[in-house]
Amino acid sequence: MERLIEEVTKRLFVELEASGRHVHLTKEAVQALFGHPLTPLRPLSQPGQFAAKERVTLIGPKGRMENVAVLGPERSACQVELSKTDCVALGLDAPVRQSGDIENSPGLILANGGQLFSIRQGVIVAQRHIHMTPQEAAARGLKDKQIVRLETFTERPLIFEEVLLRVSPEYTTYAHLDYDEANACGFRKGDLGRILCTTN
Amino acid sequence: MERLIEEVTKRLFVELEASGRHVHLTKEAVQALFGHPLTPLRPLSQPGQFAAKERVTLIGPKGRMENVAVLGPERSACQVELSKTDCVALGLDAPVRQSGDIENSPGLILANGGQLFSIRQGVIVAQRHIHMTPQEAAARGLKDKQIVRLETFTERPLIFEEVLLRVSPEYTTYAHLDYDEANACGFRKGDLGRILCTTN
Repeated sequence: MERLIEEVTKRLFVELEASGRHVHLTKEAVQALFGHPLTPLRPLSQPGQFAAKERVTLIGPKGRMENVAVLGPERSACQVELSKTDCVALGLDAPVRQSGDIENSPGLILANGGQLFSIRQGVIVAQRHIHMTPQEAAARGLKDKQIVRLETFTERPLIFEEVLLRVSPEYTTYAHLDYDEANACGFRKGDLGRILCTTN
Repeated sequence: MERLIEEVTKRLFVELEASGRHVHLTKEAVQALFGHPLTPLRPLSQPGQFAAKERVTLIGPKGRMENVAVLGPERSACQVELSKTDCVALGLDAPVRQSGDIENSPGLILANGGQLFSIRQGVIVAQRHIHMTPQEAAARGLKDKQIVRLETFTERPLIFEEVLLRVSPEYTTYAHLDYDEANACGFRKGDLGRILCTTN
């Protein structure tokens, strides 16, 4: 019975997850800032991804933020994912983009103590999205890159429009919100959402 | 033609407005903090309400916030309206409430330089709501205290569920969001929303 409920829940709902501000770094940036490779601290919900022991400071035109999470493993380009609230505090006007789409986004300075590393672009507000395994997508009749709506069962319920679905065998199924979105819907850890399909 | 478009727009849509963190003070608190009545600086969208020239510092268990807006005129109870993001920074767990409903909410310390004023309760996260004139409500078939849904035509569109409609001849029609909500939907000044009625 427990397992049946769990299975039904999985078919109907998707767990919500809030992503705090964080950075992805290149090997070059990691070397410049820390002088050694990233040290995995704890695994993230997406397989192979981890929060690193290392932290960085972000320096923008209007402010700085200390102690910002670094996620590993290293990537081919540096990327800084902030909420709009963060952007206002740092004085940056970052676009809402999917991860990896950083053309013409603003840059900033990354710091670890006296070690500085400047990036020309890479600051984005992560567009909300849902990670899903091919099995779960098939069971729900959904496909990769489909635009869906996401209803939240949270303290301040709402429906997010235009949510991108990303399907890959490398994913675990989660809906990812930034902290503005998480706070706007009153998200608490473990809260669920439901995917509503659009007509197109 | 211009006027017709404006009229149709008014019937179908409602302008969105984001409320930043602010406080309402009693006469006693104003006197203790500033030693003189509030000085109106600029009018707000709701008739008779104004932003005061005076500003306060909020002191919570985990942090402080300087330069916070004071709205007038004075009220019968002090009330501090914050976003969830603000609450986290100050170390307070404030409930999501309608204005005026402050029973069992947390307190904090208000400061103006060396002048301190402690409140036992009154810190809330303002529940999103729509102010509307009786004329506009009647034209749309809506009534006071009705719970509606609010679709936003914004950069990151969404539908807010469970939005309280407040109808009074003392209001100007506006939908009020806090900054978490405004950022979550990508609000920019002048953006519109549309009221969707619920079945109940």
